[in-house]
Amino acid sequence: MKRGKIEAATGRLVRRLNDLGRVTDQPGRLARTFHSAAMRRANTLVGQWMRDAGLKVKVDAVGNLIGRGEGSRPGAKTLLLGSHLDTVLDAGRFDGALGVLLPIVALGELRRRGVQLPFAVEVLGFAEEEGVRFASAYLGSKGYAGRLRAADLGQRDARGLSVGEVLRGASGRFQLPKAAHRGRDLLGYVEVHIEQGPVLESRKLSVGVVSGIAGQTRVRLTFRGRAGHAGTTPMSLRRDALAGAAEFVLAAEACARRDPTLVATVGTLLVSPGASNVIPAEAVLTLDVRHARDATRRKALQQLFSRARRIARERGLTLDWRQTQDDDAVACSRELTALLARSVRAQQHGRCLELTSGAGHDGVVMSAMAAIAMLFVRCRGGLSHHADEYVAPADLEVALRVIVDFLERLATVAVT
Amino acid sequence: MKRGKIEAATGRLVRRLNDLGRVTDQPGRLARTFHSAAMRRANTLVGQWMRDAGLKVKVDAVGNLIGRGEGSRPGAKTLLLGSHLDTVLDAGRFDGALGVLLPIVALGELRRRGVQLPFAVEVLGFAEEEGVRFASAYLGSKGYAGRLRAADLGQRDARGLSVGEVLRGASGRFQLPKAAHRGRDLLGYVEVHIEQGPVLESRKLSVGVVSGIAGQTRVRLTFRGRAGHAGTTPMSLRRDALAGAAEFVLAAEACARRDPTLVATVGTLLVSPGASNVIPAEAVLTLDVRHARDATRRKALQQLFSRARRIARERGLTLDWRQTQDDDAVACSRELTALLARSVRAQQHGRCLELTSGAGHDGVVMSAMAAIAMLFVRCRGGLSHHADEYVAPADLEVALRVIVDFLERLATVAVT
Repeated sequence: MKRGKIEAATGRLVRRLNDLGRVTDQPGRLARTFHSAAMRRANTLVGQWMRDAGLKVKVDAVGNLIGRGEGSRPGAKTLLLGSHLDTVLDAGRFDGALGVLLPIVALGELRRRGVQLPFAVEVLGFAEEEGVRFASAYLGSKGYAGRLRAADLGQRDARGLSVGEVLRGASGRFQLPKAAHRGRDLLGYVEVHIEQGPVLESRKLSVGVVSGIAGQTRVRLTFRGRAGHAGTTPMSLRRDALAGAAEFVLAAEACARRDPTLVATVGTLLVSPGASNVIPAEAVLTLDVRHARDATRRKALQQLFSRARRIARERGLTLDWRQTQDDDAVACSRELTALLARSVRAQQHGRCLELTSGAGHDGVVMSAMAAIAMLFVRCRGGLSHHADEYVAPADLEVALRVIVDFLERLATVAVT
Repeated sequence: MKRGKIEAATGRLVRRLNDLGRVTDQPGRLARTFHSAAMRRANTLVGQWMRDAGLKVKVDAVGNLIGRGEGSRPGAKTLLLGSHLDTVLDAGRFDGALGVLLPIVALGELRRRGVQLPFAVEVLGFAEEEGVRFASAYLGSKGYAGRLRAADLGQRDARGLSVGEVLRGASGRFQLPKAAHRGRDLLGYVEVHIEQGPVLESRKLSVGVVSGIAGQTRVRLTFRGRAGHAGTTPMSLRRDALAGAAEFVLAAEACARRDPTLVATVGTLLVSPGASNVIPAEAVLTLDVRHARDATRRKALQQLFSRARRIARERGLTLDWRQTQDDDAVACSRELTALLARSVRAQQHGRCLELTSGAGHDGVVMSAMAAIAMLFVRCRGGLSHHADEYVAPADLEVALRVIVDFLERLATVAVT
């Protein structure tokens, strides 16, 4: 594509991101949650853009927006491209939305140029990924991939309404949907997403490909000691739960620092009774450990568990170690990712960085249905889940070039 | 005193502690705060016990209950004995109450035996020491000692009522009171109090004397770093405020452990934003440092301040260090304490331990008016500010013997 054309297309993408970013349930800040009024308006707006790109639009039983274009070869396989249209509360306008709107603009550009892809495409705007309204996340992609379970339907929102009740809606009828496709009918699932981290920025790159989505374990630890008067209890007679917790925080940091691809985070710490003149009796903290290799993650957890027990023993504390989440890593498709990486190198002066996604994405669920690949786009300061989330137009342009290039490459590979 | 008599007096003390412990503003748990309905009932009840012991009772402008007995020598000096009648919320029945009720029982016993003290006595039940209703503590002893200031009157309770408004009450009039005595008219102020710490218990002693009340500094520290996604931010790019705070918690502990008479406590720690998958951007913690020697306390604080700055510098955090309280140590009177120690040794098989009080007491304020001495009584597990606060009757008996013995000794010393 010529420079003028891609610049116009990038301008269109920027305007659409801004327009969609104003579709919200809460005046003054961006918030769209599963089956809210703003989500319905978003589906209407994005559906119109899909039609403009020549796609046939429908909304499935779960509320996912689907825009489908048939391939020029009869019976050809389908390439899925997408992300989610829901947001966190007080969200930025790129997380999710970018992965829906960018493919629409890319397909619109190919259409304008008269390019007919041999394979079918579906652009997916998932109805739910963030887990804001219900404790359960990925409701959209789970529904699309036929992985929604009865347990998901029982989750209730703050008003006491269940997922099942929301989905039955006015008709009063809802059946757990089957997968939208058989795996053998799919070329794969490609998701464009902001990085939500600082690595691309620190390496001065607009985009990168994702090798896999890290496995993740969350643990809730409680150290219990004994409260006491801060003025009258000698140090030697204390059993300070916070001091034990502090030792653990530093142990988790040190453990993760030994491996540059491992991350460990203590994000919350609650101290009881929590008075400046009382020795802490209890400290409850969360540990979040992630790595692309399951064995590495498990080994780190084992080390940290041993360390926590030793801290408790040495300080006369008790320890409660409770695993609250444990998801194994998901690998991206080598073939699809290699193809995407070729497009990246072609559009980024020969440079392509491969990253692990530390965050979960719809791709985690979609990997059960199709080979997946992901393109990460640099975001300013690594900031996400925040109103100041920002992607520079120049980076959007590179990402758009990469996806157009990728679709054309895939057309030459996938015709057979 | 013969064993039978002191046992009967101890029984009386135990019953009165139990009876007063039921005078509360909150059904099911003990809570008496400045000028509450329960405080008025407590003054009535304790005032009656004072009268039974031959004391003349009044309530001063601040609400302090005062029971006065004249000495046998005209123009003799006055010995003050007392503590506070208010409590923390969900309090035990010994903190404060013991120091008011024990002297009443002791004086009642001397009266029953026909002993006339040459000096005058005043038993003081202070109206406020705990700082529960208003941020300002020691309102009772400050009023008695003429140290209440206009600033104290401006403090407001949770309902928005000020100390001044409470004290003006129905009459609409209140003037800052002058000191109840000139210093030269006083023999001193003696306070009996539970230790609120584990030292006497660990040394298997019923009572001990207090050499001084530790100086105390409180600091509010804030470490600020940068929030980030727990999955997408490599360890090397983090500025984790909680990790910095954890390092400081351990530094404070290590600093205090180097001196067995120094204590340092981090009792509160608040983490923001406080989500398990977000790197902490801010950690706010409190530091409480106490020591009997002001120079030692100041040196420890200087070291910890330097350490906090170094932690912040090394981790790319900012540090806010705000001193919220700074009270120098108060020495007990050598003479009065030596006399009290003689009584302790006489009643405790020749053994007397001298302790520093790590907690503040009415004696801190009273030291501006009079020489002070304090008797600490063992409490189970060092537990205080808790419904399970407990002093064994055997220890109450030893404390009662000591105070009776002390009054008799002082009579022989103070007649000149």
